[in-house]
Amino acid sequence: MSENKIPYKIYLSEDEMPTAWYNLRADMKNKPAPLLNPGTGQPMTAQELEGVFCTELVRQELDNDTAYFQIPQEIRDFYKMYRPSPLVRAYCLEQKLGTPAKIYYKFEGNNTSGSHKLNSAIAQAYYAKAQGLKGVTTETGAGQWGTALSMACGYLGLDCRVFMVKCSYEQKPFRREVMRVYGSSVTPSPSETTNVGKKILAQFPGTTGSLGCAISEAVETAVANPGYRYVLGSVLNQVLLHQSVIGLESKIALDKYGVKPDIIIGCAGGGSNLGGLIAPFMGQKLRGEADYRFIAVEPESCPSFTRGRYAYDFCDTGMVCPLAKMYTLGSSFMPAADHAGGLRFHGMSSILSQLYADGYMEAITVKQTEVFAAAEEFARVEGILPAPESSHAIKAAMDEALRCKETGEEKTILFGLTGTGYFDLVAYERFHNGEMKNNSPTDEDIAKSLARLPVVKED
Amino acid sequence: MSENKIPYKIYLSEDEMPTAWYNLRADMKNKPAPLLNPGTGQPMTAQELEGVFCTELVRQELDNDTAYFQIPQEIRDFYKMYRPSPLVRAYCLEQKLGTPAKIYYKFEGNNTSGSHKLNSAIAQAYYAKAQGLKGVTTETGAGQWGTALSMACGYLGLDCRVFMVKCSYEQKPFRREVMRVYGSSVTPSPSETTNVGKKILAQFPGTTGSLGCAISEAVETAVANPGYRYVLGSVLNQVLLHQSVIGLESKIALDKYGVKPDIIIGCAGGGSNLGGLIAPFMGQKLRGEADYRFIAVEPESCPSFTRGRYAYDFCDTGMVCPLAKMYTLGSSFMPAADHAGGLRFHGMSSILSQLYADGYMEAITVKQTEVFAAAEEFARVEGILPAPESSHAIKAAMDEALRCKETGEEKTILFGLTGTGYFDLVAYERFHNGEMKNNSPTDEDIAKSLARLPVVKED
Repeated sequence: MSENKIPYKIYLSEDEMPTAWYNLRADMKNKPAPLLNPGTGQPMTAQELEGVFCTELVRQELDNDTAYFQIPQEIRDFYKMYRPSPLVRAYCLEQKLGTPAKIYYKFEGNNTSGSHKLNSAIAQAYYAKAQGLKGVTTETGAGQWGTALSMACGYLGLDCRVFMVKCSYEQKPFRREVMRVYGSSVTPSPSETTNVGKKILAQFPGTTGSLGCAISEAVETAVANPGYRYVLGSVLNQVLLHQSVIGLESKIALDKYGVKPDIIIGCAGGGSNLGGLIAPFMGQKLRGEADYRFIAVEPESCPSFTRGRYAYDFCDTGMVCPLAKMYTLGSSFMPAADHAGGLRFHGMSSILSQLYADGYMEAITVKQTEVFAAAEEFARVEGILPAPESSHAIKAAMDEALRCKETGEEKTILFGLTGTGYFDLVAYERFHNGEMKNNSPTDEDIAKSLARLPVVKED
Repeated sequence: MSENKIPYKIYLSEDEMPTAWYNLRADMKNKPAPLLNPGTGQPMTAQELEGVFCTELVRQELDNDTAYFQIPQEIRDFYKMYRPSPLVRAYCLEQKLGTPAKIYYKFEGNNTSGSHKLNSAIAQAYYAKAQGLKGVTTETGAGQWGTALSMACGYLGLDCRVFMVKCSYEQKPFRREVMRVYGSSVTPSPSETTNVGKKILAQFPGTTGSLGCAISEAVETAVANPGYRYVLGSVLNQVLLHQSVIGLESKIALDKYGVKPDIIIGCAGGGSNLGGLIAPFMGQKLRGEADYRFIAVEPESCPSFTRGRYAYDFCDTGMVCPLAKMYTLGSSFMPAADHAGGLRFHGMSSILSQLYADGYMEAITVKQTEVFAAAEEFARVEGILPAPESSHAIKAAMDEALRCKETGEEKTILFGLTGTGYFDLVAYERFHNGEMKNNSPTDEDIAKSLARLPVVKED
């Protein structure tokens, strides 16, 4: 094992790190459908979007043609604090599985936020600061995105107001406290600080909140306060652009050793990690330069790709955001209370949705208990305690590797290990105690929420 | 900043990593005093120690002359999973402080156990496995050592029985659950599984346990079960030997860039991190090849070096372990309930004690609230959320850097960042809420526990 020329971990030197993000849309023949104004049904203009988002981020959101965006030096300096993230050759896992497959994973958990979210958080905070804004607002559920944004704003000295779903605020005091370390104000949602919050509290006095409500409060706060904008950690085109740093680093590292993956696997919630990981490889495929299998892994409890419809829908349950065309289960779909909180989104990135519709990607679902079993097996041989979200990709990669064991094929598998599970130990405890169940929505559940999709005329 | 030739993080390649541990004792003129049998007052023999510890570890414990111990290939392979740890140039902290000083830190928190403890855990587990043992026992307080040992045993397929102080077992279910992920059995101490546990429960029915009691239970379990040995995560000579990997990597990384530190700083509890970090540099000083200032940083609440006595004492409060000569506050000393759990040990490594007695090191104390303020300042500019223990070194390094700002000196400072604070957020919360106090023992407190030191005749 140790004689192998490929090290356990491939780190890039600073001068090997990417200097530009790659915009996958530039190489797509069928561009992702534009965001629509829910009032008029017309594509959102830059001017409309700039009321909510930073100017430069709107430009990035709408640009389907520019292939590369230079990463500003300040963001590259921040990236140097926790990047390059290691590309790990999973020698120990391969040995444990007895597979001829070669497994690599890109580990994005080596930072205090514990996930890849920081890659876009620093970019969005940077452009807000560069525009002379005072601060940003956002929502957070489990808290990973809120933590990442807090770190970025703490570094830049930008005010950060986080609306945290009330039940998480109360059940995850540690997450809340990390955000306070970085200087953010954290408000349990619904709150009395916004009109939408007051209205919901009057209507449902005992409510513990929802992500949809927290989004609405964050947007209202951004719009109501001069010098503030709203930021979002997934789904958007701009977020996938920033996250391309994951795939770019992976590709540079693999190219150094002449390794070409056969299969690339990522978990898929809103799509930011998967979109970032596959970006440069998918670009090659779109340009006809190379071929890869891409596999999106969804939880059985929230199967947007595999059981959703490709249609225009609201991004938020509160229905205040623009409409996006995507694979969706309907914005009123309520996934079971599974432990991969980051994958419980009803829709999917418009970019990935178009690629999936055009046949460039596959998608599968996995069961929660099997995901935790894979996570534990992985932790024992590779050392890292993975987040439940990331463990969906682990499970799929292990299954592919075991298939290679049957067939004798020496395939090369690359998967994204998006984060660590230090704040998910309640879930691990339930798994150990045999209290964890698998949850699959019925066809009726899905049909019911799909029946409420907004009616949109497409050209 | 970015033009500077020294990168933000220096990683060694696999072939630059140390292949042997360095035994500081080989270069000490005054060797550390031997462990004594508390019954006879005579030095512990290898045979006596082998009833409790693995044979190879006893050899390492007693060897004051061999300068280098080869690191077995299996341990080197395990190290590759999470090492080399990055040596970070703290550009952002320097800029924030406006200091001409150059600050480096060696970050040992990039693994699931969250600290440097894993460096010795894998070594101790490996030798137990190589000796054909079935398993190991240990105690854990806050849980870092227990987690590290669980990871090592999970990897090697060795049984691991952890006695966890009952109040931690109940208050830190997450730590307990991480150990279960890695396959360890975790027993709240005191327990009904040992004679000493039963006795204590009979005497103090409602007790929430103590580290001293957990040690006693772990030792009894190891001795009572064929094929089991007891392992310990700090204080011992063997542990400092394993931890020398921290200093060796640091020195190789600095040498690559022609950097020589002026001041080397580490927090000091039992001394394993500090001893490991300074090892190769102290070796140079002992051989007269180079000079450095070494600073041990203690909490004001548990000042072994600065207010203790250099004398023989029990390593454990239960008084079942051998006597060690060390700076001690007395084994009956009860430090205030400060949040740096890893620094609440009444004594100090015999190696470091001898070096301090001989004038090769300095020691200072810092106040808890100042430590947390420094931790937060550090987190915001360097990104990493530090453990309270590690933050003692941060505080001291920042103070030295600010002194350079006054004098205009461009000193180079190296400090050890031993771990992350993900499981210490209750402490951060108390700090944010202004509920944290500083605790300094009175002279009477210390005199009282020192009066109970065992009477030992030294030659």
